[in-house]
Amino acid sequence: MRMVDLISKKRDGHELTTEEISFFIDGYTNGTIPDYQASAMAMAIYFKDMNDRERADLTRSMVNSGETIDLSAIEGIKVDKHSTGGVGDTTTLVLAPLVASLGIPVAKMSGRGLGHTGGTIDKLESISGFHVELTKEKFIDLVNRDKVAVIGQSGNLTPADKKLYALRDVTGTVNSIPLIASSIMSKKIAAGADAIVLDVKTGAGAFMKTEEDAENLAHAMVQIGNHVGRKTMAIISDMSQPLGFAIGNALEVQEAIDTLKGEGPDDLTELVLTLGSQMVVLAQKASTLEEARTKLQESIKSGKALAKFKDFIKNQGGDVSVVDHPEKLPQAKYKIEVRAKESGFVAKMVADEIGIAAMLLGAGRAAKDDVIDLAVGLMLRKKVGDPVTKGDSLVTIYTNCEDVDAVKTKIYENIFIASEAQKPVLIHKIIIE
Amino acid sequence: MRMVDLISKKRDGHELTTEEISFFIDGYTNGTIPDYQASAMAMAIYFKDMNDRERADLTRSMVNSGETIDLSAIEGIKVDKHSTGGVGDTTTLVLAPLVASLGIPVAKMSGRGLGHTGGTIDKLESISGFHVELTKEKFIDLVNRDKVAVIGQSGNLTPADKKLYALRDVTGTVNSIPLIASSIMSKKIAAGADAIVLDVKTGAGAFMKTEEDAENLAHAMVQIGNHVGRKTMAIISDMSQPLGFAIGNALEVQEAIDTLKGEGPDDLTELVLTLGSQMVVLAQKASTLEEARTKLQESIKSGKALAKFKDFIKNQGGDVSVVDHPEKLPQAKYKIEVRAKESGFVAKMVADEIGIAAMLLGAGRAAKDDVIDLAVGLMLRKKVGDPVTKGDSLVTIYTNCEDVDAVKTKIYENIFIASEAQKPVLIHKIIIE
Repeated sequence: MRMVDLISKKRDGHELTTEEISFFIDGYTNGTIPDYQASAMAMAIYFKDMNDRERADLTRSMVNSGETIDLSAIEGIKVDKHSTGGVGDTTTLVLAPLVASLGIPVAKMSGRGLGHTGGTIDKLESISGFHVELTKEKFIDLVNRDKVAVIGQSGNLTPADKKLYALRDVTGTVNSIPLIASSIMSKKIAAGADAIVLDVKTGAGAFMKTEEDAENLAHAMVQIGNHVGRKTMAIISDMSQPLGFAIGNALEVQEAIDTLKGEGPDDLTELVLTLGSQMVVLAQKASTLEEARTKLQESIKSGKALAKFKDFIKNQGGDVSVVDHPEKLPQAKYKIEVRAKESGFVAKMVADEIGIAAMLLGAGRAAKDDVIDLAVGLMLRKKVGDPVTKGDSLVTIYTNCEDVDAVKTKIYENIFIASEAQKPVLIHKIIIE
Repeated sequence: MRMVDLISKKRDGHELTTEEISFFIDGYTNGTIPDYQASAMAMAIYFKDMNDRERADLTRSMVNSGETIDLSAIEGIKVDKHSTGGVGDTTTLVLAPLVASLGIPVAKMSGRGLGHTGGTIDKLESISGFHVELTKEKFIDLVNRDKVAVIGQSGNLTPADKKLYALRDVTGTVNSIPLIASSIMSKKIAAGADAIVLDVKTGAGAFMKTEEDAENLAHAMVQIGNHVGRKTMAIISDMSQPLGFAIGNALEVQEAIDTLKGEGPDDLTELVLTLGSQMVVLAQKASTLEEARTKLQESIKSGKALAKFKDFIKNQGGDVSVVDHPEKLPQAKYKIEVRAKESGFVAKMVADEIGIAAMLLGAGRAAKDDVIDLAVGLMLRKKVGDPVTKGDSLVTIYTNCEDVDAVKTKIYENIFIASEAQKPVLIHKIIIE
């Protein structure tokens, strides 16, 4: 088999066989296929796409390129959730304990990464003492006993994906559905989940700007998951404006606690219940989505969910008293209000630009070695569709630096007030195949 | 400027600026742009093409990537001819002295290369003593004095093209009109021609199998030439069957001599006159194609063309007596006839397969270090459209090895006899813009 023939085959729009795809990925991983052939292949895939079988084979080959996590020592059906990323997305912090409170094992491997705010681990580290450096044995013990634990990413998972992703990043081949879908799914599958719930965001703050692209990606991932024997479903959710009110690490922990108490923002609560219901059904702890939702709501109401959050934090060394004393979370020195210059309705809050405003404050990393300020961020005081009177606070800036002119300007430029406005639909679609 | 942005721009179908193309080619030549970005760009160009301006800029950048030949010390308009390659293509051997016999300078840089037979230099080396190792000064003196000389390829011409071509060869990006056209034209322009006549072959034995592809390539090259200030025209000629009768090095030299005497095959003679007329007009030695053709025919008839061939051979150390004593050319030990198994008309001779049959005898190189047998090859005894009677010779095999079963089989498989047949049209189109 010659790589040049496989590139030409894909270039001409033909289907690659299972053996051909594994020849490509194995060879690329071990270095016998050079970067320049892999990038030409990626570009050919960009233009000619892959069918469902090819996408599943590509994913499988990437999973097989490295280590995989064996979660079989954990009892029950392990359901993982993945979000394609957005601004102010606090769902994991709420979902993990909430779902675990129904007896469903949540064995979460999480990262830090780049973005408007830190990753799940960064956010959790706002809680004094909390850490994710667990041995694998301890991690599994915790999940078996208390149903929820988070561990940092470790091991040589999907090296093919790491190598290919870095290559795609510099060769204009990032935005390809089969390549994105196989990249995400290979990581989830290697991390050992039995079932996967995907939250594919769409809108200005999402990777997939259009509904059509988001739907294509969701379909692709659901197909891959089911093809390789992991029950997978997806929802398409709105990311035209930030999710919830909080954008920032400690601020989002606070918001997660509020939500677990039943006092969170409407949209975040609704998204958590929608995703959570799917997870509960996939974990076979309810037979219908309605039943699952009721159980989740009851768990919040009864305080079971919040209690589970406390167990989770305590198990990993965290100071549980933050739940009742939020002032113990990192606090920013200054709170600066951004007030409406006119009256009307909030018509638009451009999610990615608002995210960048939070990043300017130091809430996220632009480069891998940037240090995050856990205390800073933004609290939205209005959301799209809300009425606003001139002088009302639109956003509160939490900052450790008094000069926030650039942040203010960015916020003003990206919040539009009009004489009328509609609340965006939060859940665009649910995709089950 | 970042290469990844240029790749994405082309991938999305946008036009690259002059500066962007030169950033790409300069960076690729000096190694700051890696192979994996160049191959992704080549694949993006494969799918999204380039407009005339981009193609000219790409060519210009490749010319500027290395040395160029300065032919300004040669008086007159230097017209070069380039063929995209076919089977039994003896035109250069005839055209060079024929055109020179009208006082037009022919300063030819030529190569060996891979193929069914050797390159122009290999063929000329069938003549005892002939060599192309001339100093540049000697080369220019010869052209000024006798109007024709051939020199081997030397110097660091178009290194960008060499590097890019090698990369395209292993990344499935060879068959792209803008990339082929700029590759050919950059070499011609760097070699110093003032004007260029292109012979673009079409049919089974050609690189461009379909007439449409051949025409697209011809248009592309003519546009590039004119864009960069070199008068360029092209003809599209038939390569469904081999050109002339001879396929082999010494055999083609013999055929060239016959043609210069006015006794060559009809198709080769016609092609030589068509291409030659264009060269004469471009060199401003005739004002119309008709006038040019008459002058060329007269030169053959009067013996001027053959005399020029003798001067040319003598100047470069060759034994001129071969012209009158063809037996002095390398002779094969065996002549084996391939006879018709049925009567009818020759309906098809698959050019590339017949070429491979010649290569099997040792007439050409499959790899760079293969040694050529100058004596061997094929002489076609019939051409498409000719009537044939069972037992007639179709082809004579000239070989130094008695066992030619594989060659015979290949020939039989690729010559079709039917109850009727038509001679193919030789000159499909003339492209002048």
